[in-house]
Amino acid sequence: MTTQDRQITLYHCPFTRSTGALTLLEELGADYRLHVMNMKAGEQRQPEFLAINPMGKVPTVTHGDAVVTEQVSVYLYLADLYPEAGLAPPMGDPLRGPYLRWMVFYGSCFEPAVVDRVQNREPIHEQRSPYGSFESVMNTLVSQLKAGPWLLGERFSAADVLWGSALNWTTQFGLIPEVPEVRDYINRFLQRPAYQKTLARDAELAAAQQDAKA
Amino acid sequence: MTTQDRQITLYHCPFTRSTGALTLLEELGADYRLHVMNMKAGEQRQPEFLAINPMGKVPTVTHGDAVVTEQVSVYLYLADLYPEAGLAPPMGDPLRGPYLRWMVFYGSCFEPAVVDRVQNREPIHEQRSPYGSFESVMNTLVSQLKAGPWLLGERFSAADVLWGSALNWTTQFGLIPEVPEVRDYINRFLQRPAYQKTLARDAELAAAQQDAKA
Repeated sequence: MTTQDRQITLYHCPFTRSTGALTLLEELGADYRLHVMNMKAGEQRQPEFLAINPMGKVPTVTHGDAVVTEQVSVYLYLADLYPEAGLAPPMGDPLRGPYLRWMVFYGSCFEPAVVDRVQNREPIHEQRSPYGSFESVMNTLVSQLKAGPWLLGERFSAADVLWGSALNWTTQFGLIPEVPEVRDYINRFLQRPAYQKTLARDAELAAAQQDAKA
Repeated sequence: MTTQDRQITLYHCPFTRSTGALTLLEELGADYRLHVMNMKAGEQRQPEFLAINPMGKVPTVTHGDAVVTEQVSVYLYLADLYPEAGLAPPMGDPLRGPYLRWMVFYGSCFEPAVVDRVQNREPIHEQRSPYGSFESVMNTLVSQLKAGPWLLGERFSAADVLWGSALNWTTQFGLIPEVPEVRDYINRFLQRPAYQKTLARDAELAAAQQDAKA
């Protein structure tokens, strides 16, 4: 695969779930083109975008004719596309399983658990719930962060880009309890130059969208 | 990697989310050992199992020292572990992105949407919801099934094992509307010998657990 073959397009809106995906592209040193969207202006509901992702969500990635949607699959795809960055343990590496587990756990357990908690929804029977209970999700996460410094131990991976950016915004908005293990982990992640660069860029993009509106 | 290196253990309870994972092992022709659990007797809450998967869920897979949990990551891992079965388009194949997308969409969107609907929960703002709305999830799924016969078109993949088994039980329990596209897809999947074999085996396992109780 030549470098040219790996150029991808990221559909991105500043300070949304795609901020983490943009950070990952920076971490990977990827060759990418940014398609900036204004979701406050409803661009995600325009037919042009719905033709690409009928769910109307970012991050959405295109690579040649392939469309990749859903945050977690975008991460899995991009990290495997740039193996030389070492952010995805390959098959055969004992960390591949735990890596996939932490990726999927985010979308299948953490996000639904956070939403249910924020909505003050009545908990349902643990075996019917896709994630058990909010407490079991937090306990599982916090015990792993205790082992740290990263989710796979010493090895920083694309899973940390997903979780680092997500824990940053969920604590900022008070959606989850900011226990010390979570705070320390976010602080470590905030030191990554790729995340700093992306946050600064998002601030510029958001300001430009604000100006365009004014 | 020798065949011996690929032997995995599946923690399985009959007629649960691990039934699909067992079907996948059969589809892959995988070398596996089954650890049958009785969840009605609460074995998933025993310390021995919680030490392996603190979430207390099946399917859980061990492969050497690695533990893989979360349904979707178990599928991704196993299908990549047996590439010769051709059930996971590899990186470089234009279907890799769509494959990952359908895998992740199941855990991040479909299951939470079904649970919220079954619980009659008030819908929340589409952008806050991890999945948008139940209708958008069903529409996205049904348009893909229309193109069929499988989620990736002509190519049967591990994503169909996940979705085929899930749509079978969710329609059996009346959790989702049984529209014709879904019914036809389930009927195609029911013809897979691996699924038939697994359902028959689950019936035997469940009967044995019932006898042990009596």
